[in-house]
Amino acid sequence: MTRANLTQKILSTKRRKGLSWKQIVSEIGGGSAVYVTAAVMGQMKLRPEQAERAAAMFDLAEEEKLLLQEVPYRGSLPTAVPTDPLIYRFYELVQVYGTTWKELIQEEFGDGIMSAIDFDMMIDRQPDQKGDRVKISMSGKFLPYKEY
Amino acid sequence: MTRANLTQKILSTKRRKGLSWKQIVSEIGGGSAVYVTAAVMGQMKLRPEQAERAAAMFDLAEEEKLLLQEVPYRGSLPTAVPTDPLIYRFYELVQVYGTTWKELIQEEFGDGIMSAIDFDMMIDRQPDQKGDRVKISMSGKFLPYKEY
Amino acid sequence: MTRANLTQKILSTKRRKGLSWKQIVSEIGGGSAVYVTAAVMGQMKLRPEQAERAAAMFDLAEEEKLLLQEVPYRGSLPTAVPTDPLIYRFYELVQVYGTTWKELIQEEFGDGIMSAIDFDMMIDRQPDQKGDRVKISMSGKFLPYKEY
Amino acid sequence: MTRANLTQKILSTKRRKGLSWKQIVSEIGGGSAVYVTAAVMGQMKLRPEQAERAAAMFDLAEEEKLLLQEVPYRGSLPTAVPTDPLIYRFYELVQVYGTTWKELIQEEFGDGIMSAIDFDMMIDRQPDQKGDRVKISMSGKFLPYKEY
Amino acid sequence: MTRANLTQKILSTKRRKGLSWKQIVSEIGGGSAVYVTAAVMGQMKLRPEQAERAAAMFDLAEEEKLLLQEVPYRGSLPTAVPTDPLIYRFYELVQVYGTTWKELIQEEFGDGIMSAIDFDMMIDRQPDQKGDRVKISMSGKFLPYKEY
Amino acid sequence: MTRANLTQKILSTKRRKGLSWKQIVSEIGGGSAVYVTAAVMGQMKLRPEQAERAAAMFDLAEEEKLLLQEVPYRGSLPTAVPTDPLIYRFYELVQVYGTTWKELIQEEFGDGIMSAIDFDMMIDRQPDQKGDRVKISMSGKFLPYKEY
Amino acid sequence: MTRANLTQKILSTKRRKGLSWKQIVSEIGGGSAVYVTAAVMGQMKLRPEQAERAAAMFDLAEEEKLLLQEVPYRGSLPTAVPTDPLIYRFYELVQVYGTTWKELIQEEFGDGIMSAIDFDMMIDRQPDQKGDRVKISMSGKFLPYKEY
Amino acid sequence: MTRANLTQKILSTKRRKGLSWKQIVSEIGGGSAVYVTAAVMGQMKLRPEQAERAAAMFDLAEEEKLLLQEVPYRGSLPTAVPTDPLIYRFYELVQVYGTTWKELIQEEFGDGIMSAIDFDMMIDRQPDQKGDRVKISMSGKFLPYKEY
Amino acid sequence: MTRANLTQKILSTKRRKGLSWKQIVSEIGGGSAVYVTAAVMGQMKLRPEQAERAAAMFDLAEEEKLLLQEVPYRGSLPTAVPTDPLIYRFYELVQVYGTTWKELIQEEFGDGIMSAIDFDMMIDRQPDQKGDRVKISMSGKFLPYKEY
Amino acid sequence: MTRANLTQKILSTKRRKGLSWKQIVSEIGGGSAVYVTAAVMGQMKLRPEQAERAAAMFDLAEEEKLLLQEVPYRGSLPTAVPTDPLIYRFYELVQVYGTTWKELIQEEFGDGIMSAIDFDMMIDRQPDQKGDRVKISMSGKFLPYKEY
Repeated sequence: MTRANLTQKILSTKRRKGLSWKQIVSEIGGGSAVYVTAAVMGQMKLRPEQAERAAAMFDLAEEEKLLLQEVPYRGSLPTAVPTDPLIYRFYELVQVYGTTWKELIQEEFGDGIMSAIDFDMMIDRQPDQKGDRVKISMSGKFLPYKEY
Repeated sequence: MTRANLTQKILSTKRRKGLSWKQIVSEIGGGSAVYVTAAVMGQMKLRPEQAERAAAMFDLAEEEKLLLQEVPYRGSLPTAVPTDPLIYRFYELVQVYGTTWKELIQEEFGDGIMSAIDFDMMIDRQPDQKGDRVKISMSGKFLPYKEY
Repeated sequence: MTRANLTQKILSTKRRKGLSWKQIVSEIGGGSAVYVTAAVMGQMKLRPEQAERAAAMFDLAEEEKLLLQEVPYRGSLPTAVPTDPLIYRFYELVQVYGTTWKELIQEEFGDGIMSAIDFDMMIDRQPDQKGDRVKISMSGKFLPYKEY
Repeated sequence: MTRANLTQKILSTKRRKGLSWKQIVSEIGGGSAVYVTAAVMGQMKLRPEQAERAAAMFDLAEEEKLLLQEVPYRGSLPTAVPTDPLIYRFYELVQVYGTTWKELIQEEFGDGIMSAIDFDMMIDRQPDQKGDRVKISMSGKFLPYKEY
Repeated sequence: MTRANLTQKILSTKRRKGLSWKQIVSEIGGGSAVYVTAAVMGQMKLRPEQAERAAAMFDLAEEEKLLLQEVPYRGSLPTAVPTDPLIYRFYELVQVYGTTWKELIQEEFGDGIMSAIDFDMMIDRQPDQKGDRVKISMSGKFLPYKEY
Repeated sequence: MTRANLTQKILSTKRRKGLSWKQIVSEIGGGSAVYVTAAVMGQMKLRPEQAERAAAMFDLAEEEKLLLQEVPYRGSLPTAVPTDPLIYRFYELVQVYGTTWKELIQEEFGDGIMSAIDFDMMIDRQPDQKGDRVKISMSGKFLPYKEY
Repeated sequence: MTRANLTQKILSTKRRKGLSWKQIVSEIGGGSAVYVTAAVMGQMKLRPEQAERAAAMFDLAEEEKLLLQEVPYRGSLPTAVPTDPLIYRFYELVQVYGTTWKELIQEEFGDGIMSAIDFDMMIDRQPDQKGDRVKISMSGKFLPYKEY
Repeated sequence: MTRANLTQKILSTKRRKGLSWKQIVSEIGGGSAVYVTAAVMGQMKLRPEQAERAAAMFDLAEEEKLLLQEVPYRGSLPTAVPTDPLIYRFYELVQVYGTTWKELIQEEFGDGIMSAIDFDMMIDRQPDQKGDRVKISMSGKFLPYKEY
Repeated sequence: MTRANLTQKILSTKRRKGLSWKQIVSEIGGGSAVYVTAAVMGQMKLRPEQAERAAAMFDLAEEEKLLLQEVPYRGSLPTAVPTDPLIYRFYELVQVYGTTWKELIQEEFGDGIMSAIDFDMMIDRQPDQKGDRVKISMSGKFLPYKEY
Repeated sequence: MTRANLTQKILSTKRRKGLSWKQIVSEIGGGSAVYVTAAVMGQMKLRPEQAERAAAMFDLAEEEKLLLQEVPYRGSLPTAVPTDPLIYRFYELVQVYGTTWKELIQEEFGDGIMSAIDFDMMIDRQPDQKGDRVKISMSGKFLPYKEY
């Protein structure tokens, strides 16, 4: 039983039961839509009480429930450059804006990085007459390079 | 004269004149900090009047001014997986959250993508007692997959 | 049950029943030959009524019918550079004409791209005395790079 | 003097003289916009009389004029997977539609390929109220796999 | 049932029955040793009557017989650069002679390629006192690049 | 002065003097068209008297003449998978026929390889009503794997 | 003037003047041996007063002194897997111990990472009768994955 | 039964029995936490008496117990550049500090390497008011390059 | 039944029966330790009488015995650059000494290669007070490049 | 001045002066043919007195003489898999015999590796009636994996 197998099993149950991510996030509770979805997709861990509720919803065995509480080996993509168009667009942003992010963050904050660990993110629908927009807000703690 | 050479030349002048991106963006005008910086970094084009002001600031020759108005061959990174830690963290987000973005955007909007072309972005400092945070807000038009 | 497994199962049934793509497209209905075939090949989703008809034709189980209505993780090739000669020729066009497309589309439309999402395509036989030709017509909405 | 250097030189002259591809194609003559542009971009060869006119337009030396008449080492992209968004979209089409092209062309024509050599292409603007579209029409001779 | 699985099954039967390629080619008939072997190895398709005889020889099920008549996804090697020494030597020839082939074929025939589709090949033993030689003769139709 | 630079210089002189490979091979002498061309293209070495004649023809300096007599670091292609269509077709043959070559050569000769070192090759025009063909004949000594 | 060029220039001066890293670190001052060496090798920035002393020691021009104070694009290796044996051994540790580090750090600290930004390192000689040992001590702040 | 399968089985038992690495290391005994954990993770071998105790704890069959005593094919990561953030940070250290390690170790010890074989490592928690730190101490025998 | 599966099965039997390579080589007979081990590891073929004895020792079925007599698809490593430290050291020798081997062999023998086919190898223990050494002696026939 | 440039310069002087490696090794002295050649090829360092003699022989400047005494960044090949046939054969040995070396060395010596650092090598001509052979003898200290 690997985490990848478990994710496949959960997605199969989600499909058969006609569950939406909204329902899943609400039922598991205790976290934002992005975080909880990422956990169910095998990239984050759930807390015990969350795993309990997930196990009930997805008819999981005991070991599967425990597996959901383990930190996974992260990395959700089968190739270094993603082939799926929705995901590729984010890779494209890294390619096009990578050096710009570096310049602007470093000018504002000094030498360091935006943490991808002490980090949160929200995805929202932004109504727009010319076509609604996907709005992504992310915030990561600035971590200054330690001089030693 | 390639665009990459021009970027190197501009960065050299920026360094020698002690210019900040804030000054550069304000001087060139006509756009947001992210867009104008990306243009100067060789990933976007400038409009004629912007290029005129950039040329004055960076002591550019006529051809260099014209080159700034051309659409560049985009892609700012020397390797497919970025080695610079600040930029890598964004690649890491794609690896960790790629499939989550796909699930949540598709549940909310249907089959399609967030455009990286009809797209805008802002980078802000978010004061925080435990350490200030880098806040990135991006919004891209949702483009539904056309069924035909 | 992954989408790739489902595609294998469907191709097996197609083979055993001696179905042609023409028959499949006509039976599933509601879309062009290219779109419907791409869906059956695991790269597009079907609408419920289409999936219903596909399920009947290919003797699919309930979950498989639901899977056909999900947006797949796109990318149909096992390697970044395709090894199959028919498919490679299209990759070759990208290698040979990539920069030409860029120049001509940008001169005509300005900075932007041809959408691969708001996109349609037709494949036709073009009779020719020296040997019939494959005619491919594609049209994608021009998406101008947003200046912001 | 490599072909890549010559392309850079020509693009520089095009920029300084403010030439458009329309003008260049019309001046060089004897071919379609796509073919002639591809030749100037270093992916096709020009015939002697075309090279003569190109040399006049771009102030080329004798050897440079000869180089334009040589068959180039083809392949216009710096990476196997293109990073430029406009060009990437075409690579994406290969990833998404590759197996579909294979199925439909083979069902219609039998075992074989669409030639990328006995091949032509046109790029047009397709007016559309919801936003103009890029229309690409390509036709390649079908080459049946020889059984022997 | 994929074509790769079928090839494995056929090779297993070949092994158990002690069949040689000479016998297989002669029994299946209707083609040269190279073509028929390539088909059995999963890289070409067989015609119905050939598949019928192959099915009898290898005890194939109905679907397997049909699969042999389908055009396969071509590409017989597990890595882009082959590791098997016999096959690598051919890759080495591409590396060492690639540019030479290009020069000599283009000087003789003009701009174009040797087709790998309208193509045939023979492998023979060439007796030689210093050690017999493998003789490979291949011929492909010259396809001139279309100017348009 | 690297061999690659020397090859560029020679090709430039060839271009300016309007030399053909036929003339070059005939003038340098002492070898077949394929071998001598490969040497001039930087993949084989010339014997002293051949290098002498090449130096005269291409106006080479003393060191350049010596360099032509050195064994080069072989490998003529800028990428592992060639992008040039003429050369790619040969790579395609390796992909499609690699395992077939292995089966047929080993059945005929036993365990071993066709040498790419004790090897010769000829390229000829094969007149054909349906379009002339490129004929390539290669012969390599069979080298049996030594059992020890 | 790129940072890589500057590093080359500094190493050349170090060589000609016979400077040791001990001397360089002591002269530049204000930091540990590892940090200051990394800065001179182009992977960290120096503070103004450090850059001043470095400029004096290495005879740097004004712009070069400024460049030393800029945050570099990090990544010191020409290939993703290092070829130099001394450096490769560290890559080998990542390959052999990667999953072990993950298990032990996560069991002790919970879900999170060891920061490579709020990080310091010392390299020491550890005398040993069987052969002295290289001792490397590193410490990075544990950063817990934020749940949100 | 491969070592990778065995590692999966052991991790499953660890999960179901709620064992910690501390317990496992203590129970197996005869080695440090890092070494024993690495062995259980499939990167080191256990001595017979250690394997005996591991077999009892994880309910292993006879062959599995023997497999734990074999030297594994080392390399614990699915990709050359690790995607898991915790492990990637160590790869990042190699990228950022690789050339610095080389300079400092060679200046102190002469030409040679730090052994990754005659090597040991400890991972500790370093209490710190600003947040506890992961402390890693490693020591490898310096191996001088033999001159011969 | 693939050769890789068979190798796994044999290694499992070797493990369960507690066989050493010395015993295996001696029992199979008819070849050196290196050659016979390589055959059992799936990289060489066995002669019928050797396969007979191997089948008895490893309890192989008829087809498995036949498979041992077939020439395998060679290449024993899962990645192009080996991750296992013992094997990597040999790759490292290729990286460090590759060009030196080329210079010295070519100066002594002329243009050509050391055959890896007409080749033999021995591995011995070389007692040494400072620590025993692994001695590897290999000899390959020099194959001169044929001039033609 | 990089080490790679210096190697190019030395090879140019070697060529112009008609020096052989035998002469170079004998003149520089103080080491074996393999070691000294590797140093001149940029993969090992020379001792001061050796560098002195090399500088005289190759007309080197003071800095170049110093550079020869520095430990180089090792790795002599432009690609991970070598394209030159002479060098590739050694890579092929790693591919074919890698797992065999691992089995035999570990059975004889226990868990550990053959050092590529405390290592020496000789290349000899082995006269043979059927064609002289290249004999390579290498010996590396066995380094046992430390248990800790």
